[in-house]
Amino acid sequence: MLRDVYIAGCGMTGFGRAAGDLLDILEEAALAATEDAGLFSEIESVFVANMGAGILNHMSGLGSALVDRLCLYPTPAELVENGPASGGSAAKIGAYAVGSGAVDVALVVGGEKMRAVTGWEATDFVATLSHPQAEYIYGVTLPALAGMFARLYMEKYGITPEHLARVALKNHENGTKNPYAHIQQAVSLDGILNRPEAVVNNPWVAEPLRMFDCCPVSDGGAALVLCSKEVAEKTGKPLVKISGIGQATDTHAVHEREDPIELKAVQLAAKKAFEEAGIKPSDVDVAELHDAFTILEIAESEQVGFFERGTGHIALEKGETSLGGKLPINPSGGLKARGHPVGATGVAQLVEIAWQLRGDAGERQVKNARTGFTCNFGGFGNNVLCFVLEREN
Amino acid sequence: MLRDVYIAGCGMTGFGRAAGDLLDILEEAALAATEDAGLFSEIESVFVANMGAGILNHMSGLGSALVDRLCLYPTPAELVENGPASGGSAAKIGAYAVGSGAVDVALVVGGEKMRAVTGWEATDFVATLSHPQAEYIYGVTLPALAGMFARLYMEKYGITPEHLARVALKNHENGTKNPYAHIQQAVSLDGILNRPEAVVNNPWVAEPLRMFDCCPVSDGGAALVLCSKEVAEKTGKPLVKISGIGQATDTHAVHEREDPIELKAVQLAAKKAFEEAGIKPSDVDVAELHDAFTILEIAESEQVGFFERGTGHIALEKGETSLGGKLPINPSGGLKARGHPVGATGVAQLVEIAWQLRGDAGERQVKNARTGFTCNFGGFGNNVLCFVLEREN
Repeated sequence: MLRDVYIAGCGMTGFGRAAGDLLDILEEAALAATEDAGLFSEIESVFVANMGAGILNHMSGLGSALVDRLCLYPTPAELVENGPASGGSAAKIGAYAVGSGAVDVALVVGGEKMRAVTGWEATDFVATLSHPQAEYIYGVTLPALAGMFARLYMEKYGITPEHLARVALKNHENGTKNPYAHIQQAVSLDGILNRPEAVVNNPWVAEPLRMFDCCPVSDGGAALVLCSKEVAEKTGKPLVKISGIGQATDTHAVHEREDPIELKAVQLAAKKAFEEAGIKPSDVDVAELHDAFTILEIAESEQVGFFERGTGHIALEKGETSLGGKLPINPSGGLKARGHPVGATGVAQLVEIAWQLRGDAGERQVKNARTGFTCNFGGFGNNVLCFVLEREN
Repeated sequence: MLRDVYIAGCGMTGFGRAAGDLLDILEEAALAATEDAGLFSEIESVFVANMGAGILNHMSGLGSALVDRLCLYPTPAELVENGPASGGSAAKIGAYAVGSGAVDVALVVGGEKMRAVTGWEATDFVATLSHPQAEYIYGVTLPALAGMFARLYMEKYGITPEHLARVALKNHENGTKNPYAHIQQAVSLDGILNRPEAVVNNPWVAEPLRMFDCCPVSDGGAALVLCSKEVAEKTGKPLVKISGIGQATDTHAVHEREDPIELKAVQLAAKKAFEEAGIKPSDVDVAELHDAFTILEIAESEQVGFFERGTGHIALEKGETSLGGKLPINPSGGLKARGHPVGATGVAQLVEIAWQLRGDAGERQVKNARTGFTCNFGGFGNNVLCFVLEREN
């Protein structure tokens, strides 16, 4: 891009079941980020990330609605949708707005009010991102796709249900240290795998995935203030730069991929982000990956380049991806424990990494983190955004 | 912006009732634009403008779906929504992508499949952009807001039903010259106003607006290829530059405006677009305004600065805005006759102006048009985008 883009402010709502409506969620996240940045009237453009306002909340024109709620008119605003990668897409577009010189300060707000509907309706809603003629009409859901993916991946690399459970174990543990997490409750391997009541408490969702392999259905919002270097320097905050953005798409229908366990969009998006930043995966100090299902954290940790193929579950088992390990993954608790309000997730990942790089992550702080990475996975891997963030000072 | 952005390709589908689904519409428009530009594999980013996929078509993730349909993966893609100004917003964001230097060639595709539902459902769908607590739940629809606006505007400036009918008359006449128009049928003043059967054929929608004062419910798509100057020069097409973009928001609820007939977002968006382009309204040779209701063409023609306040209907009556007049407005037929597939409209306006500036507008060509203007009106004036396009060579 023609000029660099910085994160001047971060904000989140507590994820979980929100008392308010979608606009309340977006407003709360937006105000937290603008207060953090110390910038409000300076905002020249607003981008809202949301996937389901139409289907879940019977609303449209959320950009205008949020600007009105914030009394920010006549500031321009619109909504960006890219399934569960809506947050990443809105952040990318916010970066374009600043990077093009069109504006100096942009507000990116992601949010979703999923608990306005039942769990069944939420699952159907998420499935609207699948291929309408080749997947959706046959009843394919995202958990079903993840189940098939998990079976193939586990068979090929000798991954056991215990490895999957260890993703949940780690991320729930991290979630207890994140006051914004939907689930702030630790679990035990024994509790997930072996206790007799596990069959009841941890039922199949889509074999081999059980309930503890799946993220919860959450309400929540997250927001970022993006700006030019000149503005960022004036805020007096640590300088966190967006130093690489990579995005790639893949076939819409999963079965059209030559090898369905090759997440090509993940590989390409990560490669592009690393190239743009001029760093290697081994330079990363902390990462947020898109663990909508436990298997995805393992697969992504390999396919973005952190571990050799087939060794992600071993690194996990050794504690390398835990807090205190070589490369902590999902210190926030990830989608598994922080929750997954779909439009908010990509923004929340960037907020967590910005907090980590600033040293603002409290009990879950990764020591001396200066380079961070996010992977926001849309569709079932058909539209993926990766970001590299770096602390400059 | 840090570098200039050009329109290298334009495409549209015939507006009206489409046989295919939403993806068929988007694909057809996209292929027409890429063929026109002679650029396809060069596309580095895709932005889809759509308002109602969730509500009307139970779909999300349209960006990924279109990229898949075009076999353009791994090219990045996402959807942009801003009510009936979705097309303008997507074009703005496409311009940011090119203007930031992030990409050299971007594809912007707007489309809507509205006739998937009944007319009543379509009206309800459009009303989802109104304020959820202050307007929608009381049954406010867009025609109702337009009716109240029309009554006040007509009273203040002495506008008669005949003036409104003259907007329809002109735009239907222009529509007969546009092979892409939904309604390619001329009407007469007498037919609209005086014939006994007019009460049946032209019933009240929201007094003082009758059916002939309202745009139809249309399916349709439109697409633009945006690029850097270097790429545009290689195409060998006339150089059409986006020389000004202005956007502004206003209160979400219309009744919160100090004076509801002041379309402040229209005024500000137009002012900003003209300033950025460094031109005056009187420099414009041809314009596409957002005549979702006849009264809006008259009001916008004043509030963007073409005519003194209260004189737009007089200029119309004198034929100044007809083809052959001083400033032809809506040579395409406008929303009134070309139709209004909401997500497509903002893109279709830009396509029409680009065609006019290139001299490709056939029977409806405005002679020697070198400077064009569009006004894309979202919400009931709560989110408006204006563009200035100029032919450079």
